[in-house]
Amino acid sequence: MKRLLDRWERSCGSSRALRFVDANLRGIGQVMFQNHPLAGLLFFIAIGWGSYAAGAPRIAVGGLVCLVVATATASRLRVDDADILAGLYGFNGYLVGLALPTFMVPSTAMWLYVVLGGVASSVAMLSISSVFKTWGAPALTAPFVLVAWLMLLATHAFGGLQGGALPAIGVVVPLDPAFADPMRPGDFLQGVLHSISQVFLKGNAVSALLLLAGLAVGSLAAAAWGVIGAALAVVTAHAAGAESDLVTAGLMGFSPVLTAVALGAVFHKPGLRAAGYAVVGTIFTVIVQGALNVVVTPFGIPTLTGPFVLATWLFLLGRPKLD
Amino acid sequence: MKRLLDRWERSCGSSRALRFVDANLRGIGQVMFQNHPLAGLLFFIAIGWGSYAAGAPRIAVGGLVCLVVATATASRLRVDDADILAGLYGFNGYLVGLALPTFMVPSTAMWLYVVLGGVASSVAMLSISSVFKTWGAPALTAPFVLVAWLMLLATHAFGGLQGGALPAIGVVVPLDPAFADPMRPGDFLQGVLHSISQVFLKGNAVSALLLLAGLAVGSLAAAAWGVIGAALAVVTAHAAGAESDLVTAGLMGFSPVLTAVALGAVFHKPGLRAAGYAVVGTIFTVIVQGALNVVVTPFGIPTLTGPFVLATWLFLLGRPKLD
Amino acid sequence: MKRLLDRWERSCGSSRALRFVDANLRGIGQVMFQNHPLAGLLFFIAIGWGSYAAGAPRIAVGGLVCLVVATATASRLRVDDADILAGLYGFNGYLVGLALPTFMVPSTAMWLYVVLGGVASSVAMLSISSVFKTWGAPALTAPFVLVAWLMLLATHAFGGLQGGALPAIGVVVPLDPAFADPMRPGDFLQGVLHSISQVFLKGNAVSALLLLAGLAVGSLAAAAWGVIGAALAVVTAHAAGAESDLVTAGLMGFSPVLTAVALGAVFHKPGLRAAGYAVVGTIFTVIVQGALNVVVTPFGIPTLTGPFVLATWLFLLGRPKLD
Repeated sequence: MKRLLDRWERSCGSSRALRFVDANLRGIGQVMFQNHPLAGLLFFIAIGWGSYAAGAPRIAVGGLVCLVVATATASRLRVDDADILAGLYGFNGYLVGLALPTFMVPSTAMWLYVVLGGVASSVAMLSISSVFKTWGAPALTAPFVLVAWLMLLATHAFGGLQGGALPAIGVVVPLDPAFADPMRPGDFLQGVLHSISQVFLKGNAVSALLLLAGLAVGSLAAAAWGVIGAALAVVTAHAAGAESDLVTAGLMGFSPVLTAVALGAVFHKPGLRAAGYAVVGTIFTVIVQGALNVVVTPFGIPTLTGPFVLATWLFLLGRPKLD
Repeated sequence: MKRLLDRWERSCGSSRALRFVDANLRGIGQVMFQNHPLAGLLFFIAIGWGSYAAGAPRIAVGGLVCLVVATATASRLRVDDADILAGLYGFNGYLVGLALPTFMVPSTAMWLYVVLGGVASSVAMLSISSVFKTWGAPALTAPFVLVAWLMLLATHAFGGLQGGALPAIGVVVPLDPAFADPMRPGDFLQGVLHSISQVFLKGNAVSALLLLAGLAVGSLAAAAWGVIGAALAVVTAHAAGAESDLVTAGLMGFSPVLTAVALGAVFHKPGLRAAGYAVVGTIFTVIVQGALNVVVTPFGIPTLTGPFVLATWLFLLGRPKLD
Repeated sequence: MKRLLDRWERSCGSSRALRFVDANLRGIGQVMFQNHPLAGLLFFIAIGWGSYAAGAPRIAVGGLVCLVVATATASRLRVDDADILAGLYGFNGYLVGLALPTFMVPSTAMWLYVVLGGVASSVAMLSISSVFKTWGAPALTAPFVLVAWLMLLATHAFGGLQGGALPAIGVVVPLDPAFADPMRPGDFLQGVLHSISQVFLKGNAVSALLLLAGLAVGSLAAAAWGVIGAALAVVTAHAAGAESDLVTAGLMGFSPVLTAVALGAVFHKPGLRAAGYAVVGTIFTVIVQGALNVVVTPFGIPTLTGPFVLATWLFLLGRPKLD
């Protein structure tokens, strides 16, 4: 594989078009922190499969369109080439492009919306990363969360932009404990796999396995922490009495998965202390997921990866000494 | 006019009272980024006319009182004299002073509230601009939005401070497309003019023309971008299917107008790239206006210029390279 | 007393266990800005009495457990020893530990939750103080407010974590002026005392007197400003027409008390200007308390000291020149 990658890298060096493709693949990889074209390609296939299996190939197309727009936008702004080539101006756009067709009724207006979202995601990335650079912290998926929240909220205000598959707008009601069943082994496995695939807004076990393969190509530690994070989230959410169906659908676990990978395998040197810190951060992210599920209820939007962003900033900004 | 201004400037140099008047006029001008006493005077007349025509002259008086309090407060805090003289500690106070009597039932308590709001607006301006200076960005109207949101929210908690004209407290409901009519030419013109006058919380065509005259005195480019922003906002909002009555009342367009002036004529060197950037930012502000209309619904407060602040920060903080 | 304190200090110097006790006592003292073990001890007794009198000794125990966990956590992260010894990594944990058993149904899960809250409070303190150091401002009780808000919100999402004593989830309704009675002298006194004890989430006059004693041990000016702040808050809230029962229960005054102490006796040199500034800040905090009471209504959580944090940041971040 090493030789294949070297050849790819050489080809990219001599072709601007291939270099652009490479930057976009790395952009997909960066959703889970992998600056690696093959990881990105595997993630892309995973999402393609998930969209196709769900009967909504437009989702994969939306992601692709928005990703390309975001990457192209970045090269028009004051952005370091190195950051663009590493895919740092792609992953938020890719997620915006998956989110809008996931939650909205398809229409011409929606496709224009996807393009606008791609531009906005790169503008937001530039701004948010400029601000957080002050404290040596990354923007994470905050640009995606902010832009997609605003654009999904706005669907309630514009008749031409319909949010057909958004969560129902509701009044906050404490969870009836009757919805928290004891966990069954089969549900556990599905919860773990869907927690991984829901990072890309998909509940699909095959996609999850492809995503894990992609992660492993980029970093074995990241793949391990992805699984650990998902398992921890499912167990914690169940133990705390979350709604069983949410847990099994992976909807309590996708943010904790990202926190686990970020704290366990990306931003700290591996070690016992860093591992303990990642475990606590992952468990805390499950609580934040519950809290934000409550906060978004009256507004009829999903939390997206807001819980991951909030919890991981909290655990990173102070730059704790863990080695 | 140049000679008149020179004479005024000389008079201000020899009289502290006139200098204070000058600072306050510039304070009104700064609502639309004009550090110019005549622009401020024309804005002041525009608002005076709008208040009188609406049968609520107390609004213009409230603005004046709060403006003077805000400017006087700033000179007691650790503020650069140059900033005060340029009106930077007036415009947020002026807007707070227009907002409180616009949305509240008049009473003695309300007038004390206006004075408190003037003091708080300058304290907030000092703090918020200190924070955003870190990234070379201005506070915009964030001090106004923050202080006025808090003070209007509080009217629901205090029986002696009644918010008679606040938006109804409601549950979020996706817009019924039946409320989005096709646009008629006459409505278009009214929508454009009211989008400009709503920057100062007024729906009045004569005020809008006076405001444009004031803008033109300060900067022709600013006046042009004001009109472009308003037209873009009305067209975008209609195309996306916003509630027609809101669009025609200027309530989807006042934040985009400010974004257009800020990005097109104030914070970037003119040019094709800056113009394109301003257009995208303006369109995005329309979406943010829709989103914040949804967010404020359960709380019974108006968005004020919150959408402008949020969108313009997003488009400014990364300091994109547009020349 | 000086000799007693000297002897205590010497004992701490020669025993790590006593030094840890000292850091924790100072942690309790820091809730009201007192880096003083005796102040902390008196506060501890005040809260112990309040919990016992309310038939809920678990609250005092929760505070103690969470405090110790928070202090111990800090020493594992990249924290200055001096900050830990001054109690700066204790006070947020102490408050989290009081808040969770105050609002939740007791259970084994709740006690694990208290431990998690202690860890999270120190992580949050490290992060938030790193961020606000940029502008020379302290984190105040923001770590407590953020962590406790998230954990209390999450009780609505998890059947195993029940928030039995949380405020009812409701729709915002403007206050019926019928609930704002004229103030009676006896109510005034109770309102003042309870405003002080509610800083620690207790409505208890004896606790309030013990807290004042503790404050006076640390700083006479702080004790004076505590009383001034409480009196100002009760008078302002009544004059504005707040719900009488809330005022008398101290629930409109605890944030203003903290603002008064912070602005009047801690962060500025004493003087007429600083005093005037503290008075305005305290009155403004009453308004912010009303505003946040409205904002939290649909979510069924208390404001905690959020109004203090927001208002005091607003009055501190610009570093106004008051001497």
